[in-house]
Amino acid sequence: MRVYDLILKKRNGRELTAMEIDYLINGYVDGKIPDYQMSALAMAIYFQGMTEQETLNLTNTMIDSGETISLEAIPGIKVDKHSTGGVGDTTTLVLAPLVASAGAPVAKLSGRGLGHTGGTLDKLESIPGFSTDMTVADLVDAVKNIGVAVAGQTGNLVPADKMLYALRDVTATVDSMPLIAGSIMSKKLAAGADALVLDVKAGDGAFLKSKEEAFELARTMVSIGKGAGKKTVALVTNMDQPLGRAVGNALEVKEAIMTLRGEGPADLQELSLFLGGWMLTLAGKCSEPDEGKTMLLEAIKNGAAVQKFKELIRSQHGNDAVVDDFAILPHVANQIKVKSLRAGYVQRIKAETIGIAAMTLGAGRDTKDSQIDPAVGIILEKKVGDRVKIGEALAVIHARDDAPPEVIEAVEEMILIAYKLHNEQTEKADLIYGTVD
Amino acid sequence: MRVYDLILKKRNGRELTAMEIDYLINGYVDGKIPDYQMSALAMAIYFQGMTEQETLNLTNTMIDSGETISLEAIPGIKVDKHSTGGVGDTTTLVLAPLVASAGAPVAKLSGRGLGHTGGTLDKLESIPGFSTDMTVADLVDAVKNIGVAVAGQTGNLVPADKMLYALRDVTATVDSMPLIAGSIMSKKLAAGADALVLDVKAGDGAFLKSKEEAFELARTMVSIGKGAGKKTVALVTNMDQPLGRAVGNALEVKEAIMTLRGEGPADLQELSLFLGGWMLTLAGKCSEPDEGKTMLLEAIKNGAAVQKFKELIRSQHGNDAVVDDFAILPHVANQIKVKSLRAGYVQRIKAETIGIAAMTLGAGRDTKDSQIDPAVGIILEKKVGDRVKIGEALAVIHARDDAPPEVIEAVEEMILIAYKLHNEQTEKADLIYGTVD
Repeated sequence: MRVYDLILKKRNGRELTAMEIDYLINGYVDGKIPDYQMSALAMAIYFQGMTEQETLNLTNTMIDSGETISLEAIPGIKVDKHSTGGVGDTTTLVLAPLVASAGAPVAKLSGRGLGHTGGTLDKLESIPGFSTDMTVADLVDAVKNIGVAVAGQTGNLVPADKMLYALRDVTATVDSMPLIAGSIMSKKLAAGADALVLDVKAGDGAFLKSKEEAFELARTMVSIGKGAGKKTVALVTNMDQPLGRAVGNALEVKEAIMTLRGEGPADLQELSLFLGGWMLTLAGKCSEPDEGKTMLLEAIKNGAAVQKFKELIRSQHGNDAVVDDFAILPHVANQIKVKSLRAGYVQRIKAETIGIAAMTLGAGRDTKDSQIDPAVGIILEKKVGDRVKIGEALAVIHARDDAPPEVIEAVEEMILIAYKLHNEQTEKADLIYGTVD
Repeated sequence: MRVYDLILKKRNGRELTAMEIDYLINGYVDGKIPDYQMSALAMAIYFQGMTEQETLNLTNTMIDSGETISLEAIPGIKVDKHSTGGVGDTTTLVLAPLVASAGAPVAKLSGRGLGHTGGTLDKLESIPGFSTDMTVADLVDAVKNIGVAVAGQTGNLVPADKMLYALRDVTATVDSMPLIAGSIMSKKLAAGADALVLDVKAGDGAFLKSKEEAFELARTMVSIGKGAGKKTVALVTNMDQPLGRAVGNALEVKEAIMTLRGEGPADLQELSLFLGGWMLTLAGKCSEPDEGKTMLLEAIKNGAAVQKFKELIRSQHGNDAVVDDFAILPHVANQIKVKSLRAGYVQRIKAETIGIAAMTLGAGRDTKDSQIDPAVGIILEKKVGDRVKIGEALAVIHARDDAPPEVIEAVEEMILIAYKLHNEQTEKADLIYGTVD
C-alpha cells in the first residue's frame, strides 16, 4: 500500500477500504505519513466526500487511535448530548441537572470555548470553587452518587483527531462534512455514552451557515452513531440569533439557573426541553419526547431541577449558594446600554458578531492560551421579533471598570452591526428546523 | 495576507491575484510556507483549475524565482522546441542540426530521461566524446560559430518548479493542467528563447492519454507563451505507438542520422518536418510551415543537414566519424528477435510498455541516480498498419551478452503485450492531430 496511490484513489472519487483508512490514519499518528500528504488527502476528501461506510470506518479508526472511556459501572443508559457550538448556548448547563433530576444519569465530558463560541467548562468554573478536573473514576462515582457530573476531557482520547484537526485548521479543509462528522462522533463515541442526542446548529452564529448543510451533517452523524451500534438522534436548530439573552460565562450560569426555575428566556427553555425530552426517551425513561418534556417541566415546577444543580455544584466543590444569591457570581458594575439608532423590528442578530464582541470584552479566548474573564459579557435586551424604538437599549455590555474606551466603542459598534432591524414585522423562523433519527 | 485565506479562496473556486500568487510561490521557495499548505493548495488547484491570467501569473512568478538565460548575444530569432515527452522521440536530435542547416539558430537546453521516456542529453552522450556540459557563454559562442548547440540545464533555473514538482509528485497533484503548463512554460521561458514550438503528445505512451486533454494543455501553454510576449505554436501529436523504430540511446542516434539523410522512418521524418517547418516560420526564415518543410527537405537532399550534425558533434567534442560509421557508436552483439505468436495487422503498440521494456534493458533510468547503458534498446520491426505473420519478428531486442535470461524473457513478454494485433486492417490514426497557434 502506498500513500500516493490512496490520495490518487480518493482524488479520483473512489471509495477507500477500511484497511486503507486504517493505514492512512495509523500512519499519520505514528509519524510515518507526512503532513503534506495528509493535507492533500484532506483536500481531496473535501472535494470528493466520503461514503457512509468510509465515514464510519474513519470514525472507528480515529477512536482506536487512543484511549476510550467506559461508563459501564454506572447503572442505566447513559445519554450524551452534543452541540456543534453556538453563541450563548447554555443548554448543557440547563440539561445536565434537569435531565438528571428526571431520573436519567448524566456523565458529561465537556470542552472549553475557543473563538466566538463559549465552553461549558469555562461557564461552570465561573461558580466560585467549582472544579471540572476529575478522573474517569471520580466522574463515575459522582454520577453514581447524585446522578450527574460534568468533567473536562480526560485521558488521551482520539489523538488522531487532535492531529488531523490541527492540520485541517491551517489548510482550509475544516468544513468537509465527513471529516467534521468523523471528528465529532469519534470523540463522543470514545467518551463511552450509550446513546447520543446531537444539536446541529444552522445559521450565522454556527459552524454551518445553511440549513441544508446542517441536515447533511445531522444525517451523516446519525448514520455513524447507528453504524457504531448507538441510538442516535440529531436536531437541526436555528442559530440566526444567540440562544437566550446572556453571552458570557457567569451571565450564562445565572441564565441557566433562571431557566431551571422556569424563569429563563423562552428559546433557551424550548430548546432545553426538546433536547432533554429526547435524552429521556433514549435513556428509556419515557416512550417519546413529548412525555419527556412533561417530566422535565414537572422537575422545573417542583424545584427538583434547581435542587439537582445545587447538588452538582456541591459535588464538584463549588459554592451552591450562588443558586439563591447571584451576587456570589463574578460580576461587574460597569454596565453600558447599547442604544438603537433607529426604530423597527429585530429581524436577525448576527450571533457570530455578538460572540466576537463578547470575546473582545474578555469573555472568550482568541487563542488557546488566552485567559478568560468570567464576569464580563453581553445581555441581549431585544431579540428577533421584538419592536425597538429609537434610543431604546438593544443590549447591555458588562465590562471591567478599566476596560479601555476604544474597546467599549468597538464592542458597541459590533453590537449595532449585529442587529438587523426592519420597518415591518417579519415572520419569525422556527427554533427547531427538524429531527433526524 | 494569510496562506490559509488564499487556500480557501482557491478551494472555493475564486481567482487568485498576481500579488497573491507571488506571495504563495515566493513564500514557499523561501521556506516560510510549509509543504502541507502548498500541497493542500495544489490539490485545490487540481479541482478548481486556474484562469488564463492566473496560469500566466504563476508562470511569471516561477520564472522570477531563479536565474534566467539571455540569448540576446546570438543574432536572429531563437526558436526553441519542446516535447511533453514520448517514447522513441528522436525529433530533437533530428531538428537541432536540420533547422540550423536551413539557417535558423538553435540554442537548445535539454534534459535527461527518467522513467519510460528518454532524454536528448543521454542520447547525444552515446556518441563517443560528445559533451553537453556547457556554460551559457559556451552555448552562445557555439551557436554564433556553427548555428547550433545542445547543452544540459545550466544555472539555477526556476527553483520554484523543482520544489513544487517534487511535492506534487508525492501528493497526486501532478496532472493538473495549469500546474503542468506553468511548469513547462516557466522552464522554457527562463531558457531565453524568442519563440516556441511545442509538441504535445497524446496517447498511451504520453503523459496525457486523451486527445482532449492534450489540446487543453496545448491551448494553455500557447496562451502563456503569448501572454509572455513570445510567438508560440503547439502541435498535438499521436503517441499511440513509439515514434520511429528505435528505442534506446545509440540506436536513436543512428536513426536520427538516417533521418537527416532522408532514410529514416516515415513518421519520424513527417513529425520532424512539421515541427521544423513551424520553427523556421517563427524564426522568420519562411512565411508558412509548408515553405519551411520544403527548405528542410532540400537541406536533407543536398547533405547540409547531415553536415550540420557533424559540425555539432565536432563542436561539442564528439567523434563525428559516427555519422559515416555506425560501428563507432556503442552497440551490442546480442540481438534477440521477438516473434509474433499470431497473425494479423498491428493496430496499436503501447508506447509506455515499450519504454518500460527498454528501461528494463538498461536504456533508461528508473531513479535519478541509475546509470544508463547507451548501447541497449529495442528496434521495432513492425509498426501500426503493418501485416504480421505467425513467427515473424515484431521487434529486435538489443541486450548485453551478460543480461540474465529472466530479464530478456520479461522484456520479450512486455513487447508481446505491447503489440495489439487485429485480424483486419483498421484505419490508421493521424500522426498530427492538430495545431494550436
